[in-house]
Amino acid sequence: MRIDLQRLMETINTSAAMGATENGGLHRLTLANEDTEMRGTFVHWLETAGLEVTVDDFGNIYGRREGTNPDLSPVVIGSHLDTQPYGGKYDGVIGVLAALEVIRTLNDEDIKTERPIVIVNFTNEEGARFTPPLLGSGAVIGDLSKTTVYDTKDAEGTRFETALYESGYQGEEVHRLREAHAFVELHIEQGPVLEQKQKSIGVVQGIQGLAWLTVHVKGEADHAGTTPMSGRKDALVAASAMVTALSRYAASVEELVITVGTLQVAPSAPNVVPSDAAFTIDMRHPDDHMRKGVPMAIRKIIADTSKMYNVDFELETKYQAETVHFPERIQNVLLKETSSLEYESEKFYSGASHDAKNMSSIAETGMIFVPSVNGKSHHEEEYTNDADIEKGANVLLRATKRLADENE
Amino acid sequence: MRIDLQRLMETINTSAAMGATENGGLHRLTLANEDTEMRGTFVHWLETAGLEVTVDDFGNIYGRREGTNPDLSPVVIGSHLDTQPYGGKYDGVIGVLAALEVIRTLNDEDIKTERPIVIVNFTNEEGARFTPPLLGSGAVIGDLSKTTVYDTKDAEGTRFETALYESGYQGEEVHRLREAHAFVELHIEQGPVLEQKQKSIGVVQGIQGLAWLTVHVKGEADHAGTTPMSGRKDALVAASAMVTALSRYAASVEELVITVGTLQVAPSAPNVVPSDAAFTIDMRHPDDHMRKGVPMAIRKIIADTSKMYNVDFELETKYQAETVHFPERIQNVLLKETSSLEYESEKFYSGASHDAKNMSSIAETGMIFVPSVNGKSHHEEEYTNDADIEKGANVLLRATKRLADENE
Repeated sequence: MRIDLQRLMETINTSAAMGATENGGLHRLTLANEDTEMRGTFVHWLETAGLEVTVDDFGNIYGRREGTNPDLSPVVIGSHLDTQPYGGKYDGVIGVLAALEVIRTLNDEDIKTERPIVIVNFTNEEGARFTPPLLGSGAVIGDLSKTTVYDTKDAEGTRFETALYESGYQGEEVHRLREAHAFVELHIEQGPVLEQKQKSIGVVQGIQGLAWLTVHVKGEADHAGTTPMSGRKDALVAASAMVTALSRYAASVEELVITVGTLQVAPSAPNVVPSDAAFTIDMRHPDDHMRKGVPMAIRKIIADTSKMYNVDFELETKYQAETVHFPERIQNVLLKETSSLEYESEKFYSGASHDAKNMSSIAETGMIFVPSVNGKSHHEEEYTNDADIEKGANVLLRATKRLADENE
Repeated sequence: MRIDLQRLMETINTSAAMGATENGGLHRLTLANEDTEMRGTFVHWLETAGLEVTVDDFGNIYGRREGTNPDLSPVVIGSHLDTQPYGGKYDGVIGVLAALEVIRTLNDEDIKTERPIVIVNFTNEEGARFTPPLLGSGAVIGDLSKTTVYDTKDAEGTRFETALYESGYQGEEVHRLREAHAFVELHIEQGPVLEQKQKSIGVVQGIQGLAWLTVHVKGEADHAGTTPMSGRKDALVAASAMVTALSRYAASVEELVITVGTLQVAPSAPNVVPSDAAFTIDMRHPDDHMRKGVPMAIRKIIADTSKMYNVDFELETKYQAETVHFPERIQNVLLKETSSLEYESEKFYSGASHDAKNMSSIAETGMIFVPSVNGKSHHEEEYTNDADIEKGANVLLRATKRLADENE
């Protein structure tokens, strides 16, 4: 029992034409014309595969293949068809289209499963046109209220509900996914781990937790010409020393990543010693105990550096998310099917968030990663080898069948 | 022969009321109502002191005290009465008002000088309302064209000429200062040197040269969660290492100052590893040979750091100014008069620019600095002790008399 790679790649290439960019990428923002066109094609494919298609009130599209025991909760597989601006054609798209390929293969082989299988395309996973990201899955599990979702606006002021209505994909609340026996999402890795380890299959252990902190460094503004180096309280020099110290610290702790993605300076004139520097810290580690200790280490680095440079600081924690751990049981199903296919796998935590994070609150959840060439993601040059896509889809096929045959 | 400190302080305090801020500072932008009010009072003081008042077509105000030999070129003394936004009440203001006190003292003592003495208040030295700074003195020496000066606009779009006309201080071209035997400017130091050395009088050797450079660091944007520390090309981490290395380097070279006053990051999202960082470098050293070598050292620091952090860079020199050296002869006059008064002096280069820099192109020029408490300048807390103002004014008095009695 294997998927048909040629058919899957044709599907991926057809998708890649709807929002294709000059440089070989994909620009398909949520509910824009390209996304609506893709949705139409996707629904057609679902219907042709004999699935019962429904759309919920957030535009999430479902295709249901009935099980021999329709009273059992379904196994749900899928991801999202939207992209980042000038993003790639793989990302979550292959998770939805590999799910379709799973159904087609089961159909071809005339294989019945005990449980229903539901394919899902979640709306606005990327959060590029509408914020927040993971919108469709977050709404379905009740993490986001309908009012919040409907009132969110794009950069041009268009309400989500308006865009949804105009696309023709405003379905009904009754169709929301309420329960699932399991949820499995195939996605590209978006990082370099699999490529570096030369493995084709990533079995995702969960979504690593993160903390967002802000640091405000307070020094003193001075004249760039008249203030000797020794008398300065330069907020930017101090902040720079903090940035490099944080980077060195992160590199010294396994699996820890720390990113300073924004930094503002005031008064911001070439001939004035900066009085203020403010920056953000994004810190991620899969181990919650570890991650809770890191902010203390960060505080020590910031405090020591402040002292050294004779400046003051304020450090605030703005946001924290616990690590989501996917159940061992689903990981083991994925590992077992991977080795039965004689593929090599690597277990690790996802640094990025995914719809699977939301789904894990209502279903036993797992994720399969396939390699990103050069680790590129959210980029027109994003690429995954056909052979790896084939392997990922085969693992998804076997795991789906196995989970759908579980009758308790 | 001594100035009258009480009278001088009354003059300074009267000035300090025209644009006084709640925190004891002075907010007197060029040709704003406060500046116009100050100009009116100043002209009244000049006339009361028996001076011949003229105004040129840039609003520079002159008060001439005739010499016994009116055919000789004048000795010019003065500075500027405008301030930075929420600046201090001393700055250049005391240079103009001490010049007035010099005239009043000569009048009281009935002292005649061979050469005429001219007091000047230059328009828009600060460049806070209109750019560029040193506008009035730059225009008088022909460094700025009349068109450039008249067309420059403030932040609200008001042309300089309009503001000048409406203030009533648009005088005539014929009154421009064309020649001078010498120019002497008293000013606060705006830095910590005199305070640290516990000296009351700074004899300024010149205006130190400077270079402005820009650095653009090019790395690669990556996902903050999925990219391990070791695989990153983080433009901000690299730029931060450059900023701290430049600061350390500057601290290691005597009299060198390097300031990174602005820094921008892109794409500037908390969860994206920065692909770009751009910053400015302001570098000053009084020795031109030295200063010309420094950019090479800076390039090496930038290049080595780029290599270490696996990023690319572009470095450009945007602006360079040679050091202006004031003639030894004027420095010696100032030093001699300082020691005849038994005051202690320190010779050094000014890190900031002044109208004296422009005047040095048409006259033998010197500057007297008095201490800034805590080195504060362009700040409401700017302060200079009365005793130091008295000393500075006495040196100005004696030096002016000496120079005005030179007949060749």
